[in-house]
Amino acid sequence: MKKVVIAYSGGLDTSYCAKYLSKEENFEVHAVSVNTGGFSEEEINHIGENAKKIGAKTYKNIDAVASFYQKVVKYLIFGNVLKNNTYPLSVSAERIVQAIEIVNYAKEIGAKFIAHGSTGAGNDQVRFDMIFQIIAPEIEIITPIRDKQLSRQEEIDYLQQNGVDMNWEKSKYSVNKGLWGTSVGGEETLTSKEPLPEAAYPSQLQEKEPKKITLSFTKGELSAVDGKANSPQKNIEILENIASKYAIGRDIHVGDTIIGIKGRVGFEAAAALITIKAHHLLEKHCLSKWQLQHKDYLANWYGTHLHEGLYLDPVMRDLEAFLESSQEQVSGEVHLSLHPYRFTLDGITSKNDLMNNSFGNYGEENKAWTADDAKGFIKILSNSGKVYQHVKAEK
Amino acid sequence: MKKVVIAYSGGLDTSYCAKYLSKEENFEVHAVSVNTGGFSEEEINHIGENAKKIGAKTYKNIDAVASFYQKVVKYLIFGNVLKNNTYPLSVSAERIVQAIEIVNYAKEIGAKFIAHGSTGAGNDQVRFDMIFQIIAPEIEIITPIRDKQLSRQEEIDYLQQNGVDMNWEKSKYSVNKGLWGTSVGGEETLTSKEPLPEAAYPSQLQEKEPKKITLSFTKGELSAVDGKANSPQKNIEILENIASKYAIGRDIHVGDTIIGIKGRVGFEAAAALITIKAHHLLEKHCLSKWQLQHKDYLANWYGTHLHEGLYLDPVMRDLEAFLESSQEQVSGEVHLSLHPYRFTLDGITSKNDLMNNSFGNYGEENKAWTADDAKGFIKILSNSGKVYQHVKAEK
Amino acid sequence: MKKVVIAYSGGLDTSYCAKYLSKEENFEVHAVSVNTGGFSEEEINHIGENAKKIGAKTYKNIDAVASFYQKVVKYLIFGNVLKNNTYPLSVSAERIVQAIEIVNYAKEIGAKFIAHGSTGAGNDQVRFDMIFQIIAPEIEIITPIRDKQLSRQEEIDYLQQNGVDMNWEKSKYSVNKGLWGTSVGGEETLTSKEPLPEAAYPSQLQEKEPKKITLSFTKGELSAVDGKANSPQKNIEILENIASKYAIGRDIHVGDTIIGIKGRVGFEAAAALITIKAHHLLEKHCLSKWQLQHKDYLANWYGTHLHEGLYLDPVMRDLEAFLESSQEQVSGEVHLSLHPYRFTLDGITSKNDLMNNSFGNYGEENKAWTADDAKGFIKILSNSGKVYQHVKAEK
Amino acid sequence: MKKVVIAYSGGLDTSYCAKYLSKEENFEVHAVSVNTGGFSEEEINHIGENAKKIGAKTYKNIDAVASFYQKVVKYLIFGNVLKNNTYPLSVSAERIVQAIEIVNYAKEIGAKFIAHGSTGAGNDQVRFDMIFQIIAPEIEIITPIRDKQLSRQEEIDYLQQNGVDMNWEKSKYSVNKGLWGTSVGGEETLTSKEPLPEAAYPSQLQEKEPKKITLSFTKGELSAVDGKANSPQKNIEILENIASKYAIGRDIHVGDTIIGIKGRVGFEAAAALITIKAHHLLEKHCLSKWQLQHKDYLANWYGTHLHEGLYLDPVMRDLEAFLESSQEQVSGEVHLSLHPYRFTLDGITSKNDLMNNSFGNYGEENKAWTADDAKGFIKILSNSGKVYQHVKAEK
Repeated sequence: MKKVVIAYSGGLDTSYCAKYLSKEENFEVHAVSVNTGGFSEEEINHIGENAKKIGAKTYKNIDAVASFYQKVVKYLIFGNVLKNNTYPLSVSAERIVQAIEIVNYAKEIGAKFIAHGSTGAGNDQVRFDMIFQIIAPEIEIITPIRDKQLSRQEEIDYLQQNGVDMNWEKSKYSVNKGLWGTSVGGEETLTSKEPLPEAAYPSQLQEKEPKKITLSFTKGELSAVDGKANSPQKNIEILENIASKYAIGRDIHVGDTIIGIKGRVGFEAAAALITIKAHHLLEKHCLSKWQLQHKDYLANWYGTHLHEGLYLDPVMRDLEAFLESSQEQVSGEVHLSLHPYRFTLDGITSKNDLMNNSFGNYGEENKAWTADDAKGFIKILSNSGKVYQHVKAEK
Repeated sequence: MKKVVIAYSGGLDTSYCAKYLSKEENFEVHAVSVNTGGFSEEEINHIGENAKKIGAKTYKNIDAVASFYQKVVKYLIFGNVLKNNTYPLSVSAERIVQAIEIVNYAKEIGAKFIAHGSTGAGNDQVRFDMIFQIIAPEIEIITPIRDKQLSRQEEIDYLQQNGVDMNWEKSKYSVNKGLWGTSVGGEETLTSKEPLPEAAYPSQLQEKEPKKITLSFTKGELSAVDGKANSPQKNIEILENIASKYAIGRDIHVGDTIIGIKGRVGFEAAAALITIKAHHLLEKHCLSKWQLQHKDYLANWYGTHLHEGLYLDPVMRDLEAFLESSQEQVSGEVHLSLHPYRFTLDGITSKNDLMNNSFGNYGEENKAWTADDAKGFIKILSNSGKVYQHVKAEK
Repeated sequence: MKKVVIAYSGGLDTSYCAKYLSKEENFEVHAVSVNTGGFSEEEINHIGENAKKIGAKTYKNIDAVASFYQKVVKYLIFGNVLKNNTYPLSVSAERIVQAIEIVNYAKEIGAKFIAHGSTGAGNDQVRFDMIFQIIAPEIEIITPIRDKQLSRQEEIDYLQQNGVDMNWEKSKYSVNKGLWGTSVGGEETLTSKEPLPEAAYPSQLQEKEPKKITLSFTKGELSAVDGKANSPQKNIEILENIASKYAIGRDIHVGDTIIGIKGRVGFEAAAALITIKAHHLLEKHCLSKWQLQHKDYLANWYGTHLHEGLYLDPVMRDLEAFLESSQEQVSGEVHLSLHPYRFTLDGITSKNDLMNNSFGNYGEENKAWTADDAKGFIKILSNSGKVYQHVKAEK
Repeated sequence: MKKVVIAYSGGLDTSYCAKYLSKEENFEVHAVSVNTGGFSEEEINHIGENAKKIGAKTYKNIDAVASFYQKVVKYLIFGNVLKNNTYPLSVSAERIVQAIEIVNYAKEIGAKFIAHGSTGAGNDQVRFDMIFQIIAPEIEIITPIRDKQLSRQEEIDYLQQNGVDMNWEKSKYSVNKGLWGTSVGGEETLTSKEPLPEAAYPSQLQEKEPKKITLSFTKGELSAVDGKANSPQKNIEILENIASKYAIGRDIHVGDTIIGIKGRVGFEAAAALITIKAHHLLEKHCLSKWQLQHKDYLANWYGTHLHEGLYLDPVMRDLEAFLESSQEQVSGEVHLSLHPYRFTLDGITSKNDLMNNSFGNYGEENKAWTADDAKGFIKILSNSGKVYQHVKAEK
C-alpha cells in the first residue's frame, strides 16, 4: 500500500485530504503536525484523535519549537526583520521549518508521497513544494485542494457522506498560531479598506495597568525576561504571555505574494514586535554606524528570501554568517513599559554601549578633540562639494 | 565696518554671539532667523526685539516653510524616511534649508562673515559649515561658542556685564520646533537608560476620545485632510494640530553623529509619523514589489546623506529623480484612527490599488491561472535549488 | 481565417513554425522580423522572400534600431551595465524591444495570435511571453517548438515533405547579431571548460596597427566618434565598424537563466565594451563618489531586471529617471587606443572634470587646506573607532 | 631619550624624517620597514644600511607577506574586489597591515612616538593615522613632511648639509611594489588626459608566445598554479612572475580620495587581475544567483571601507564572515591563456559546477520540466505586470 505523509492541521481542508486519499486513492495515510509554537498538548491530542477517526493510520506531532527558533527565528531577531517594515514573517518562517520536518519524517517512514492542503492562490504552496522538491525530488507531492478547487460546502458534504461528522462550521476568521506570532484572515482582509474588528484578534485586552519590564540579550539572543534566565524560545513564550494581555503587536500586513498578487493579512505578535524593537535599540547603542547600515540591507533581503521560500539557497547561510558575526557585542538590558495596545522603549544598559561620554556629550561638549579639529574635519569633508561647485561655476 | 550675518534663535548662545561680535569684534551684526515651521508671529516679533536690544543692527525673519517642504520634506515623505527606523530627521532637514537661506541673505546684503552658535560636539556645526563653505567659499564662518567653549554661566555673566539682563534661566529641556517635528534634549537624553518624562514633551495629551481621519495623497503628496484640500505643508500643520493633542509620535532616537560619537535625542512628531506611515501603506497597495524594494534602499541613503549634511551632493538630485518618478501612482485615501499616544492604519481606497481581485484572492482562489500553472511555476522556481542539492549530493 | 503574427528570423525553427501553422493549423501567417541592428537590407529581402515561399501571407521588417537605442541601450550605457561584470546584455535587451514591436504590429493588423520559435529551455521564451501577456493578455501565444520538442532532423523532414527545400545544414554556431553585440553559441558553450575557437567569432582580426580614437559624450550619450557627430545609435555602428576589425570585445558569459539553470554563451561586442568602459572612465572624473556608488548598485539591478524580462515593471522607469539625472555632467572626450584583441583607455578631457588641481594634487600638495586641517579631519574620523576600542578594552 | 619608531622606506621623505628627528628633535630613531611583498632580501639589507647611516639607532624589517594575505588579500579575492571596477586596491590594502605591524612594534619596544613620511594631500596619512590612533591612542604621531610642506630640494639640501650624501636624483616615477600589485605615479597621472608611457611600468614585455596555465582554487583560495600546490601567497608570487613577463594587468585608476579630491594612479598587477578574474569565473559556475548578487554588493563595500582606512571597524569582520561562508563551494580549476598585454579565461572544471546538464542545456532542451511547466511559470511570473497594466488601463 502506498504511504502518504499528510501535513495535517485538523482543519477542514486537511481532513478532506486525509479522507479522500485513504478512501478514494487507496493511500496509507500518515498524518503529521509540526508544532512551531502554537499548540497546547490538549490541542495536539485532539488533532491526533480526529486524524485517526478520519482514517489516518498513524498520527505524529513533531515538536519543532527549538528547531524553529534555531533555524529561523534567531536570525529574524538578529536582523530585526519586519517585512515591509511591518510584519514579523510569522507564518512564512514557520512553513519552512514545517516542510523540512515533514520531509524528514516521510523519509524516515519510507513514504513516497507527501500531501498538503494548500490552495493554488497563496504563498504556502510555494514554500512547501519548493522545500519538498529540493530536499526530496523523489517524493511526489499531492494537493487535492489545489487540484480540485472545491468549495467549502463540497468538502463538508464529502466528509459527511463518508461518515465524518465533525463541526465544520466556519469560524469567521482563519487563525494560524505559532511562536513568532498569530496571523488572522477574514472578510475584511480581502478588502483594502477595512480593518479587522477588535473581536477578530485572539488576545483580547486584559491588563490596563502599565508595567515595566526588562529584557536581557546575550550576543543578540533573548536570554532573560525581568532577570530570569531561560532558553530564548522559552523567553519569547514568557514575553508573549505577559504582553499579549496588553493587546500589543497588532497590525495588518499588505504584501507581494510569491505568485505576484498583493495579499493582506492581519496579525498579532506581541513578543515578536517587542523583542525586535528592543533588540534593535540595543544594537543602536552597541554597533557601529556601518554595521547598522549593512545589517539593515542584508536583513531585509534575508526576510524577503525567507518569505519567498528560498530558505535552502546557500546565500541564506552566508547571510546568517554575517548576522551571527554582527551580534558579538549585542549584550545588555533593554528597559520597556507596556501599555494597552502599545509599548515604549525606555532605555538600555550595556557594557558595550558606544554612547560613551568620556569622548564628549553629543551637542554639548567635546572632550576628545578641539574646535580646530572640528573645523579641519568639516573643511576637508567639504572638499568634494567645493570642487563640484567650483567646476560648475567655472563653465 | 565688517558685516556679519548671525543665525539668531534668541537663545543664550546666539545672544552671546551677537553681543560679543558687535562689542568686542566690532562687527555690524545682522541677525536672521529662518522659520521652518516652528515659530508664531508673536515669537518672531519677540526674537526680533531682543536681537536689537542686544546690539544687532537689523533683524530679519525668513519664512522658509514652503521652501523647506519643497526642498526636503517632500522627498522624506516620498521615501518614508525614518532614520534608524525611528526618527523623521526633523532637525537635520531644517538645518540644511536654514543654512541655504542664510547664505543667500548674506550674499544679498553683502556680508563677508556668517556667525552661528553651534558647539564643537554636534551635527549642526557640520551641516551649517558645509553648506556655507560649498555655496560661498569666500565667506568666513565665525563660531564663538565652539571656539571658546564657554560655560553657560560665563555667557550669562558676560551679557549681564554688558547690560543685557534678560531671563536666561535655563529651561530644563532644550526644544527645537519645526514643520517636521520637535526635538527635545535634557539630562535624560545624556544617558542611555532614562526616558524623557511626560512633562518634557511640548504637546501634552488633550484628547482621549478616538477619532477617525482620512488623509488624501496625490502622487505622493498630502493633498487633503478629511477631504479638505490645501497645500501639502499646510496639511502637515493641520494634521499636527489634530494629532498632537493625542500625544502621538513621541520617541527617542539614538544615532551616529557625523563626528563619530553616538547621540540620543527625544522628539515629538505626530504629523511626520502619521504622514509617513499612511503614505507607506498607500505605497504598499500601489507600487510593485521591486519599486518597494529599491525605494527602501535609496530612501534610506537619502536620509543618511541628508543627516550627514550632504544635501548639495549631486547624488541627492538623482535620488530625488528616482523618488519623484516612483510617486506616479501613489494617489488615494488612507483611513486612520487616532488614539491617545498611538494611531492605527485602518485601510486605503485608491484607483491604483494593485490588490485587485479580478486576479484572485490571496490564499483563497486563483482566477487568472490554474493549479497546473502554479505547479509549473513552483517546479521551475525550484530548479536552481534542485541543481545545487544534486551537485552537493553527487560529490 | 485566424491571423497569426510570427516572429520570423528565417532560421529553421521559425520556418518550421510558419509552415506548420499555415498548413496544419490553418492560420493566415504574417511573418515579421524586428531589426535591432543586425541585418543588412539584402538579408532582410532574403528573409522576406523565404517567408513567402514557406507560406506566409505577408512579411514585414520593422526597423527598430532607434527605438532599441532610446528604450534600452541608452540606459545600459548610462549604467555601464555588464551582467556579472562581463556581458553587455546584447540579446536580453533586443528581445524586449522586439516583443513590444511584435505586439504592436499584431494589434495593428488585428491578429489574435502570436507565434515564436523559442524552446522551453531558455530565457527568450520568458522575455517574449511576459511582454506579450502583459501588454496584450487577449492575444494567444503559440510556440510549436517548445510544445513539440522536435529534433532538428524532424523539422527538416517535415519541411521537405512539404516542399520547402532550403539548405538547412546547420551552421556549427548559432549567431545572433544586433546593435549592442553578437552572441555566439556552439558545442563548446554547452561545456564549462572549452573556449570558443577563433573561427566561431564573426569578426576576424583584420587590423594589426594600433589606432587612436576619441569618443565624445554629451550628457552620457555617445555624440561623436573622432570628432564627427551623429546620432548615438549611428555612432555605435561606426565604432563597431572600426573596432571589430581589431577583434575586440570577445568573451564568454556564464549566467543564471530566468528558469534557474546556468547558461554559457560567447559574444563579441566591440562597440558595447568600448563605449561602456569609456563612458565609465568619464564618469569617474565627472561624478561624485556617492553618485558612482549608488549608480553602480542601481544599474546592476537595471541589468538584472532587464535580463529577467521585467522591462515593463514600473521600477524600470524609476531607475531610468535616476540614471538620466546622473548624466547631467557626463560630457567630454575619452581618448583610447585600439590594439588587436584589446583596447586601452588613455585619458579624458572634460569641462566637468572634478580632478581639479586648484584644490591640490593627490598625494603631492594640498592647496585648499593645511596640515592641521588634515590632522583634525583624521582625528574626528577616528572617533568611532576609538570609542569602540575603548569600550572593548574597558570590559 | 624619547624613542620614535619611523616607518622607513629608504626614500627621500623618510630619510629626511629620520635625520631631522634624530638631529633636531633629539629622538632615538628606530627605523622599521614592513615587507608586504615588494622587497628582495638585497633591497632590505640596503635599506637597513642606509637607515643606520642616516642616524637610526636600529633598523628592522618585518616580513608581513603571510599576514597581509591572511588579513586582507584573501578577502579581496573572495570578493573579487576591484575599486571602481578597475583597481585591486594594492596600496590601500598594504597600508593597513603596515600600520598594524608598526604599532605592534612600537608597543614592543616601548616607543611613545611613531613617525611617517606622508604628505597632507593623500590617502596614506589617513590610513596610517587612523590605525595608530585607534589601536594606540597613547602614542603620538609625528609627520614632518606633512607639517613643513618642504620641497624636494629643501629636503635634499638639509640632508647634504648634514652629511647624508646619497643619490636622491628623483626617478621620474614613484613606484610602490607589493604582493598585490605595483602602483606607479608620475607627471602623466597628475593630468586627466595622459596615459603612462610604456617605460614607466616596471615589468616590460618579455614573452610574446601565448601560454596556457591552470589555476586551482580551494574554497576560494589560490591553492595551486599549473597543478603545483603552495601557500596562496606563494602562488600569487609565482603567478606574478609568470604573468608579468606578458605585461598583463596594467591600467590607470581614477578614484575619490578619503580627503574628497579625485586622484589618478597607474598600476601593474598581473597576478591580482588574473586571480580575481579567474576566481570570479569559478564563482559564476559554483554560486547561486543570489550569492553572486549579494556578494557583489558587500564586496564592493568591503573594498570601499578598506580604501578609506576603516579596516578596524567591526563591520569588516562581519563582511569577512559573509565572504568566508560564501566560499564553501568555490573549488576547482580555471584554465587561462596568457598573451602579450592580456589574458583570456578559457573555462573551468569543478565538482561543484552548477552548470549541470542533467537538468537541461540552456536554450536547447529541458529535461527536468515540460513545456507546460514553463508556460505555467511564465504565466504566474507575469501576474504582477498584468495586474499593473490592468489597473492602469481601468482608470
